[in-house]
Amino acid sequence: MKSTVPVVAGIDIGATNTVMGLVDRHGQCYHRDTIRTGNYETATHFLDAMARMVLFAMESAGQGFQLEGVGIGAPNGNYYLGTIEAAANLQWKEVIPVTETMAHYFDVPVRLTNDANAAAMGEMLFGAAQGMKDFIMITLGTGLGSGIVCNGKLVYGHDGFAGELGHVIVEANGRQCGCGRRGCLETYASASGISRTMQELLTTSQENSLLRNQSKGSPDAKHIYDAACAGDKLALRAFDLTSRYLGTALANAVAFSSPQAIILFGGLAQAGEFILEPVKRYMEDTMLHIYKNKVSILPSMLPESDAAILGAAALIWEEKHIPEQHP
Amino acid sequence: MKSTVPVVAGIDIGATNTVMGLVDRHGQCYHRDTIRTGNYETATHFLDAMARMVLFAMESAGQGFQLEGVGIGAPNGNYYLGTIEAAANLQWKEVIPVTETMAHYFDVPVRLTNDANAAAMGEMLFGAAQGMKDFIMITLGTGLGSGIVCNGKLVYGHDGFAGELGHVIVEANGRQCGCGRRGCLETYASASGISRTMQELLTTSQENSLLRNQSKGSPDAKHIYDAACAGDKLALRAFDLTSRYLGTALANAVAFSSPQAIILFGGLAQAGEFILEPVKRYMEDTMLHIYKNKVSILPSMLPESDAAILGAAALIWEEKHIPEQHP
Repeated sequence: MKSTVPVVAGIDIGATNTVMGLVDRHGQCYHRDTIRTGNYETATHFLDAMARMVLFAMESAGQGFQLEGVGIGAPNGNYYLGTIEAAANLQWKEVIPVTETMAHYFDVPVRLTNDANAAAMGEMLFGAAQGMKDFIMITLGTGLGSGIVCNGKLVYGHDGFAGELGHVIVEANGRQCGCGRRGCLETYASASGISRTMQELLTTSQENSLLRNQSKGSPDAKHIYDAACAGDKLALRAFDLTSRYLGTALANAVAFSSPQAIILFGGLAQAGEFILEPVKRYMEDTMLHIYKNKVSILPSMLPESDAAILGAAALIWEEKHIPEQHP
Repeated sequence: MKSTVPVVAGIDIGATNTVMGLVDRHGQCYHRDTIRTGNYETATHFLDAMARMVLFAMESAGQGFQLEGVGIGAPNGNYYLGTIEAAANLQWKEVIPVTETMAHYFDVPVRLTNDANAAAMGEMLFGAAQGMKDFIMITLGTGLGSGIVCNGKLVYGHDGFAGELGHVIVEANGRQCGCGRRGCLETYASASGISRTMQELLTTSQENSLLRNQSKGSPDAKHIYDAACAGDKLALRAFDLTSRYLGTALANAVAFSSPQAIILFGGLAQAGEFILEPVKRYMEDTMLHIYKNKVSILPSMLPESDAAILGAAALIWEEKHIPEQHP
């Protein structure tokens, strides 16, 4: 008689694609599948397709697998309510009752949270934060997301919306942010932030740059990285400015929760030496003395292709396998 | 046969006095006593006197009382290590093993934390934060202390030093802070901060003020309050500037932990309309839209005379009577 493998369906709802995989307790991912988020006119149709994707994967997997739960990461996902509310990049603007709807399809626990919180859980169970009880996850994409773990638990706040470090104001009357305010961290420290910085440098400086003769529009993070690798001074300066904003903001975040590590995830975080080292340096320079030389800046240890799925699945695995810990 | 009253010894170690009281589970305080902190040349002698103060109180209380634990609030108190380290206002500069030493006198649990964390526990069990699982405590004294509660637990961080919101930098190259850096929140939002602000206003403005003809030195918070009550425009402006720094800093803190309330404690917090209302207004003006109109700014509900004792005792009562809660 073969023993069954307990798995959790990890689902990441993105603006373009919604991806799914069955994840075992060691972070091994099986039977990945994808649906196109944009193809569904109503949220109800979309959720039905999402549920069927899981059911189909379990059927394909056969009797060797047993479903233990469904974990979902989504933009503006609210852990307490199990809803997605007013997500800027999704086409459905109403409050979407995700976990309630999923409960019609599955008799196992269903949990939802935002993508950065899911990423934090993924790192804690399967990545760079294994064994840590206090750390901060920073996801550097188009914007800046964050997931904060204190005492081994995600910080959700009283309403489920804690952990929006991308919207800490770092520059009074600074850059216009999509949230309607000015000077938010994510307008400087993100893929779009470094692109704006580069564009400003190209406009205000006379210095030669590989990025001057690009086609129209601001140079994107990838091009800035390539230019920095080639020694382009303005591109290097763009990374330095980005790192300064992020490093000094993180010094303030440390005064809040005194984490063991801050983990950087996403395209920009892969710019390695151009970001990890200077962020650490600016953070150390700015930080209160009692925290100095205690906080690591680490790159994510999750494979980028599966990171979102692993994070979503970790929401369930964390409940099942991390016993309550008292310091 | 009379039943016994279980009590916890709550101790607050201050630079001048160390105060103690026996606190029952409802926050009733008995047998207060005080020793003069400055009278003891060595930390060992001091801790001996502190322990004897508790033993004496229990003896005086008689058989009707049973000691359940000893909770201690102290400057730079470290919860994990049970030590006081390099407290600026105490005369002993070595690392003081407080809980370890106390364990020689008592066979009940002994806990130590910093004074702002103790205040947060006091509010959660006996004051304005009863029933809350997510809130931030701000103590406005000479400096600005903070205790952060997430998921019903104090945030200590990986090293026990979390929650130093007084040292979040709010003004690049701003006022010199005692920590050696510039622009820390407590250089603006504290009793000494408002005093510096008032002095600056008196120097830079030509406006009449009741505070112009004081004796030498900066006007203290109490005098500024009295002047504000009398309608003094510069004093009112000092309160407004102080509130703006605090309110905008709290808007950033909300993006971190999304608390249900922020509780203000200490002399400045008692300036009522001059501080609570404008702090709330500046916070709301600055805050990300998803948090608007959700976060209360509340004054402490602990009687000021016993607040520190109640907070210290709450460290023990919280362990005994708040069951682990899962959202």
